[in-house]
Amino acid sequence: MATSPKPTPRLLLGPGPCDAHPRVIDAMATPLLGHLDPQFLGIMDETAELCRKVFLTKNALTFPVPGTGSAGMEACFFNLVEPGDKVVVAAAGYFGNRMIEMAERSRAEVAPLTAPWGTAFDPAEIRETLKAVRPKLLAIVNAETSTGVHQPLDEIGALCREYDALFLVDCVTSLGCTPVKVDDWHIDAAYSCSQKGLGCPPGLAPLTFSDRAVAALKARKTKPQSWYLDLNLLQQYWGTERMYHHTAPISSMYALREGLNIVVEEGLEPRWDRHVRNHRALKAGLEAIGLDYIADSKHQLPQLNAVRIPAGIEDVPTRKRLLLEHGIEIGGGLGEFKGRAWRIGLMGYNSRPDVVKTAISAIEQVIGATAGSGVAAADAVYSKE
Amino acid sequence: MATSPKPTPRLLLGPGPCDAHPRVIDAMATPLLGHLDPQFLGIMDETAELCRKVFLTKNALTFPVPGTGSAGMEACFFNLVEPGDKVVVAAAGYFGNRMIEMAERSRAEVAPLTAPWGTAFDPAEIRETLKAVRPKLLAIVNAETSTGVHQPLDEIGALCREYDALFLVDCVTSLGCTPVKVDDWHIDAAYSCSQKGLGCPPGLAPLTFSDRAVAALKARKTKPQSWYLDLNLLQQYWGTERMYHHTAPISSMYALREGLNIVVEEGLEPRWDRHVRNHRALKAGLEAIGLDYIADSKHQLPQLNAVRIPAGIEDVPTRKRLLLEHGIEIGGGLGEFKGRAWRIGLMGYNSRPDVVKTAISAIEQVIGATAGSGVAAADAVYSKE
Repeated sequence: MATSPKPTPRLLLGPGPCDAHPRVIDAMATPLLGHLDPQFLGIMDETAELCRKVFLTKNALTFPVPGTGSAGMEACFFNLVEPGDKVVVAAAGYFGNRMIEMAERSRAEVAPLTAPWGTAFDPAEIRETLKAVRPKLLAIVNAETSTGVHQPLDEIGALCREYDALFLVDCVTSLGCTPVKVDDWHIDAAYSCSQKGLGCPPGLAPLTFSDRAVAALKARKTKPQSWYLDLNLLQQYWGTERMYHHTAPISSMYALREGLNIVVEEGLEPRWDRHVRNHRALKAGLEAIGLDYIADSKHQLPQLNAVRIPAGIEDVPTRKRLLLEHGIEIGGGLGEFKGRAWRIGLMGYNSRPDVVKTAISAIEQVIGATAGSGVAAADAVYSKE
Repeated sequence: MATSPKPTPRLLLGPGPCDAHPRVIDAMATPLLGHLDPQFLGIMDETAELCRKVFLTKNALTFPVPGTGSAGMEACFFNLVEPGDKVVVAAAGYFGNRMIEMAERSRAEVAPLTAPWGTAFDPAEIRETLKAVRPKLLAIVNAETSTGVHQPLDEIGALCREYDALFLVDCVTSLGCTPVKVDDWHIDAAYSCSQKGLGCPPGLAPLTFSDRAVAALKARKTKPQSWYLDLNLLQQYWGTERMYHHTAPISSMYALREGLNIVVEEGLEPRWDRHVRNHRALKAGLEAIGLDYIADSKHQLPQLNAVRIPAGIEDVPTRKRLLLEHGIEIGGGLGEFKGRAWRIGLMGYNSRPDVVKTAISAIEQVIGATAGSGVAAADAVYSKE
């Protein structure tokens, strides 16, 4: 008749979840409210407003949908795409491919634009494709979690306007870590998750739709294929109507509000800078012990360090030692990179100098590098600041 | 730079969420694990096995899907129905209607079987419909949350076998409160939620598929229309393959495991009995102060007491007083019963004598009944035991 034993703690340095901020963990244990309680409705309003601040948007339709990041992805496709619509998905990794899968399940006519895993797309390629296909929607991943590649977005939104396409962006691994400027970049729809840059447990997917995206939603001839993720209905719950739809995940909302508050208190720019600073130190350390990045130096994500597994080092046994002997989780490779890459996340609360040094020191040990060589390289980066 | 203030506590006696058990609240604050950590995979296995115990089934495909109860509903329709399939939905309330909506979005050929709100279906009617329509699937709500009606199921499963239909049951408000016997009743697919009889926060939907349902899933000619709720993919994550699908809602899983453990520790029969006992006391109290049940006495749900609002009593202002002056949430009416009914939940942890008496005493005050008259009637029931 006893409470289940607590698990052995881990330091979560994979592709997410990362460790939640202690204030967020505390928020999870807040007693429940009803999903139509005025206090809870207030928390929803606060959360939506905080989402706007973090997405850098004024979009009215901005709130979390009740599922993980992939539910956010599905919500965007299901609400923006009708059967037969032309959709371009630019895919250069596992999550780009997932977008293709979801576009297909939406019965879109999908034109994939692919590039080798580990690379980013050039705006010129995007322009050619928009010109040739003339899609209703172009979708792309901002931070490709499978390759550690940062896809610049600042020029693509304008191209989408030029060719009258909606611009849909996966911000699952970018929001709260690297810049996401929804309004400035003319993004029409974006979704993220709670368990990476926002430092919360998984379970909610913040999402935002521009007025153009809302107009497309309103102009649908058919209902979205999901009732659960129907943004017309969800909007009536989040808006002034307060129409009952689903029973909101109350505790996850407490946590998300807290996580977003922490982001806003820190400030977006200082938070982005912090991610870059700790990435630089980690990178110096990893390179000093012989680990190379998959992405070229211009396109490396600070929050998700995807490196090649060195020759002679086994993937699974090494990660297992990291986990069991050091209590550190890092991610293995996905898809094409299975068995060939490690993915080391420094996201949100976990992007800290102490974490960087702990991680490098443990990796030194499990791959048999000279003790302290990686940590010294990281320290050198910090001391130059 | 401070943690958000905690909300004023409420006693949650609406249709759910109800208050979570203190052990569950504590579990929510457990530090995160990765979704592929061996410790977390162990918690998943435990949770699936506990779901089987609570659903009274040996079904291999038994686990929670990552969304609220409505996601469970959607998962069942999306995975069992293909476009053009004939589906009968027996609907006598708001959630039966929601099932019709989801069957339609699955592009089924839907034959609704309707009955007046506040009543249950007779097996003879079900037989006639099965005989006439010969559907692939028959769907029904076990505990209709909008009317407080208990729909007996023990004969319907056999009828579905006789007419070769899959039998899909909504157990959102029944599981953990009133009997749900998946194997004995020949139920092919059932789903529930975390925030009612299981006493957890909202966010997960336990679901179970019989071998017949799994066979139907395997025999599909088309992919399910949702990737997020595709049970073939989810099963590969929950099964021995441990194939990455989504990032599981880690904290909600900790909570669900704890909530299910509490149910199993108490025992299903004692738990069902407890719900009946406290319902009887509540009912005596409510009737003593002039509140009548919507359902007839044979079909009243112990966990969800739907009563008519007495003449001369205003709905919203009275519930507002209960909430603000007494800290008690009860539910208003839905759909046809909007403004005409109250729904008083005594679910899971909240089905307790002290809660019953607190609720009756507060309701006495806000409707202007003689002080103590309802509580005395409830006490009389308890003292007869």
